Amino acid sequence: MEKISIAEARRAAAVGREVRLQGWVRTRRDSKGGFSFLEINDGSSFGNVQVIAEGSLANYESEVKRLGAGCSVTVEGAVKTSPAKGQETEVRATRIVVHGWADPETYPLQKKQHSFEFLRTLAHLRPRTNTFGAIARTRNCVCRSIHAFFQERGFLYIHTPIITASDCEGAGEMFKVSTLDLANVPKAEGKVDFSKDFFHRPAYLTVSGQLQGESFACSLGKIYTFGPTFRAENSNTSRHLAEFWMVEPEMAFYELSDNMDLAEAFLKRIFRDVLQQVPEDVQFFNARIDDTVIATLEGIVASEFVRLTYTEAVERLEKSGQTFEFPVAWGRDLQAEHERYLTERVFQRPVILFDYPRSIKPFYMRVNDDGKTVRAMDILVPKVGEIIGGSQREERLDVLEQRMREQGLAPENYGWYADLRRYGTVPHAGFGLGLERAVQFITGMANIRDVIPFPRTPGNAEF
Amino acid sequence: MEKISIAEARRAAAVGREVRLQGWVRTRRDSKGGFSFLEINDGSSFGNVQVIAEGSLANYESEVKRLGAGCSVTVEGAVKTSPAKGQETEVRATRIVVHGWADPETYPLQKKQHSFEFLRTLAHLRPRTNTFGAIARTRNCVCRSIHAFFQERGFLYIHTPIITASDCEGAGEMFKVSTLDLANVPKAEGKVDFSKDFFHRPAYLTVSGQLQGESFACSLGKIYTFGPTFRAENSNTSRHLAEFWMVEPEMAFYELSDNMDLAEAFLKRIFRDVLQQVPEDVQFFNARIDDTVIATLEGIVASEFVRLTYTEAVERLEKSGQTFEFPVAWGRDLQAEHERYLTERVFQRPVILFDYPRSIKPFYMRVNDDGKTVRAMDILVPKVGEIIGGSQREERLDVLEQRMREQGLAPENYGWYADLRRYGTVPHAGFGLGLERAVQFITGMANIRDVIPFPRTPGNAEF
Repeated sequence: MEKISIAEARRAAAVGREVRLQGWVRTRRDSKGGFSFLEINDGSSFGNVQVIAEGSLANYESEVKRLGAGCSVTVEGAVKTSPAKGQETEVRATRIVVHGWADPETYPLQKKQHSFEFLRTLAHLRPRTNTFGAIARTRNCVCRSIHAFFQERGFLYIHTPIITASDCEGAGEMFKVSTLDLANVPKAEGKVDFSKDFFHRPAYLTVSGQLQGESFACSLGKIYTFGPTFRAENSNTSRHLAEFWMVEPEMAFYELSDNMDLAEAFLKRIFRDVLQQVPEDVQFFNARIDDTVIATLEGIVASEFVRLTYTEAVERLEKSGQTFEFPVAWGRDLQAEHERYLTERVFQRPVILFDYPRSIKPFYMRVNDDGKTVRAMDILVPKVGEIIGGSQREERLDVLEQRMREQGLAPENYGWYADLRRYGTVPHAGFGLGLERAVQFITGMANIRDVIPFPRTPGNAEF
Repeated sequence: MEKISIAEARRAAAVGREVRLQGWVRTRRDSKGGFSFLEINDGSSFGNVQVIAEGSLANYESEVKRLGAGCSVTVEGAVKTSPAKGQETEVRATRIVVHGWADPETYPLQKKQHSFEFLRTLAHLRPRTNTFGAIARTRNCVCRSIHAFFQERGFLYIHTPIITASDCEGAGEMFKVSTLDLANVPKAEGKVDFSKDFFHRPAYLTVSGQLQGESFACSLGKIYTFGPTFRAENSNTSRHLAEFWMVEPEMAFYELSDNMDLAEAFLKRIFRDVLQQVPEDVQFFNARIDDTVIATLEGIVASEFVRLTYTEAVERLEKSGQTFEFPVAWGRDLQAEHERYLTERVFQRPVILFDYPRSIKPFYMRVNDDGKTVRAMDILVPKVGEIIGGSQREERLDVLEQRMREQGLAPENYGWYADLRRYGTVPHAGFGLGLERAVQFITGMANIRDVIPFPRTPGNAEF
């Protein structure tokens, strides 16, 4: 008797097999005919398999009739064609072994619907629910797509450091990493004595692997990072996490248009894979979370992204006659409302905005010949606005150092980064995709805390 | 004219194509015939392509003859069958564009061999060398294998948290994560006032995702984590990193023998993929780093792992007549010298040791019926000793809590973890593989700092 997954047992091809299934009971329903129906799930698919437990089972009265949501079981039996609607197969049990009970008086996940907010307090149990099981499979599918996309194209997966002494964008809001005794921080001449700390200097959690990623792209051509990144921002919103996963490809000999081509193909690949590989989960999101997700994903996969300069975008917005909360003016950053207006109202498909004002973009973005703009790009999608940000990098040493000074950064702190331009510099480009933003977009989940297993936010490092 | 990789250009199938290549010059050699040979590499393969640069090129005298190690170029030309030994193809350039120079007076990577220790100070440039390019491709291959292995078997990739308020093994040596001002730590009643810190409590960098991984396995069946983990140990050795990547699969309804089967198949898959997918890199390691690596990997792929209880292993060691630095006695942990003796001398193949004394293993390992041992397993391989550690987990709530108390841990701090046993508990098991230990084993590199892009060790968070 072979163990198979419930995903397999639900397929017509399994009919006629004697199998062993292992999973958790979702529901039990007793028939007047003296037998019971059990819905069993093992995480391998959204749907359950229906098990028919006859009254003749040795433990029918003593155990089977006490089974309820959350109990774990092994079921042995034969896969049959199901006469019921909505399922191809069912399993006639010849033996049911109970591994673990779940007292219905105390088990927190009863059949009734719980709010996502309540389930956040049960992050260790919520993957047992329909919604969070579907999110876990979808997130896994996205991660698999990410790796497949880059590996098929010859990119090398590189692990850039999590603990860093440098700061990608000259921004603040980083977590400190230390082994000093916080109750008794050693001091020297009135300052913290970092010579006593683990790294002998202040150290932080990374906000981006880009700079280190560039060093590998400038050696080995095409690379991507995929790892956790951190923001110590005190933002209690449905769109911010203190810890999240980011994908950052970086390509030598890529200019901005190559970067756009890659990013467009990348997003389409992820969305296509999700539609094809976890269709039951996506149908669930469409039915229960946001009834536009399938149409949106299919629309993006089929569309050609619009490419528009920042300057053209500002003109469009200014001429739109639309009233925005934040005024539009060349030289200011666009807000989500502007981005959404462009992608939802003007074009009704994804838009790649590029060539942003140099003053609002980081030092490492390549300056255009106009001297006023840099080779930045943002991909905007309906509902969320920016989903990917990237740029061609400044490969000219003199311009790079001038840009650093312009932004108040000391070139001497970026010596190794400048070396990439000093020795065999190449045009190169890259972008970043926040995994959780992508999963949130795909699933339609309103709060980003619900698309990562154990969210970290201000005041919350539970589990 | 199509851009192709140097890996492609080196294959006989490319002969006859007009192509564009982009990469970095490794060497230039001028012929008396008034032309030059350039060796170009772009990271796509260990080997370079040889480019013939005729004296008739427009920039031959002005630029081509000044090219040296580290310069970046675009080469356009025709792929020809090479008359030279050791290469199938060569490229006759019709055009060479220089993107970036590398002044031979200051470029730190000259043709001569540098020590690995020196190259560690150039972590941003060392991937341009043969050795570190080969390591990057091999590490990428291992990562790809890891994902492929688990995805093909229906495992879900889960991201467990990096910042955590709990501690997997009750061990110390964790990094603190904080946003408090270290120069002026807020206090309340003489203690650190963590209510002012980002998470409102002490927070740390994770040492393992196992406990959180268990919560997903106990909901969705088969999962794996693959992420960074941290140790704040002050160990300046060739085998320790403060930040390293770990793979941790966790499977519901797996007992210890299932766990062993999976771990054995997993290791063999990684080693087989490396031998097949990056053969040039492995040949390089075998030729230049450690002339046993190919035979060792092939031996492991072909062997059946020995399975031996800890108790039997101790008996074997006691009877061996061998003098060890550390004495062997039942109840003590085995040292690397003992592990290596078993795998190298006694069995000459990998050994899975299991059923270790309960007193030397963490609380979460399942207690055997003998009451003295737990369902732990370690996989030992030649040269390094333990490469994988794992166990069947204690699924019985009462035994788990007794084990916590036995080890001085307060069960009330592990309430969510106990819930996995309280509600629908299942037999389950898992193991961990340190990525860098595996890459070190495969490549034969003596120092673990050389198999991760930017190593973090005491006193070192450069780049």
